[in-house]
Amino acid sequence: MLSKGGCPKTMLSIKDALEAVEGRWKLLILFSLSESPKRFKEISREVNGITDKTLSKELKNLEENKLIIREVYNTFPPKVEYSITPHGLSLEKVIDELHFWGLAHRNKVIGK
Amino acid sequence: MLSKGGCPKTMLSIKDALEAVEGRWKLLILFSLSESPKRFKEISREVNGITDKTLSKELKNLEENKLIIREVYNTFPPKVEYSITPHGLSLEKVIDELHFWGLAHRNKVIGK
Repeated sequence: MLSKGGCPKTMLSIKDALEAVEGRWKLLILFSLSESPKRFKEISREVNGITDKTLSKELKNLEENKLIIREVYNTFPPKVEYSITPHGLSLEKVIDELHFWGLAHRNKVIGK
Repeated sequence: MLSKGGCPKTMLSIKDALEAVEGRWKLLILFSLSESPKRFKEISREVNGITDKTLSKELKNLEENKLIIREVYNTFPPKVEYSITPHGLSLEKVIDELHFWGLAHRNKVIGK
């Protein structure tokens, strides 16, 4: 693809994707939910370093982008659970490649 | 990889990668430079919507992460050019997958 460097149409697709998963948290939240549906506090524990305020904002945005769904169970107290959608799961290859590249980057640049 | 959902080591690699390419601009800048080395104004024209201040900040950060190099030619007036490093080019597969996913996302969610 980099051989198509600079192509405006490809640039638009990459921009669309980057806007949907923007920031350092969304893909980590999706990765956490790819294991199983989770409650707010469970996601918060797994995604190290995220504040409740940010997590709340990111979950809303992921829901708007149809990457996760929020389900409220009719129990007392009400149980709220987040789960990944098929569209969210379709980010698998992006996450794979980021994982492999992240390993190489840590060896090369972060050096730990 | 999503079958390894929640694995802390994988989470760290993904986090490393996301921090290196954080935001909506860095991968677009790299994609532009993957075609050929470019001057500041050329990158600015290709990466639609970026301000000069942000571009300047992003270029510095990409240089710190060894993803691009900045070369100053000894001419008058001095010519400054940015080019992608082999480490930057190794993001090719990440950018590929973002491109494919971005196409699907536009069809499904953005709907244009």
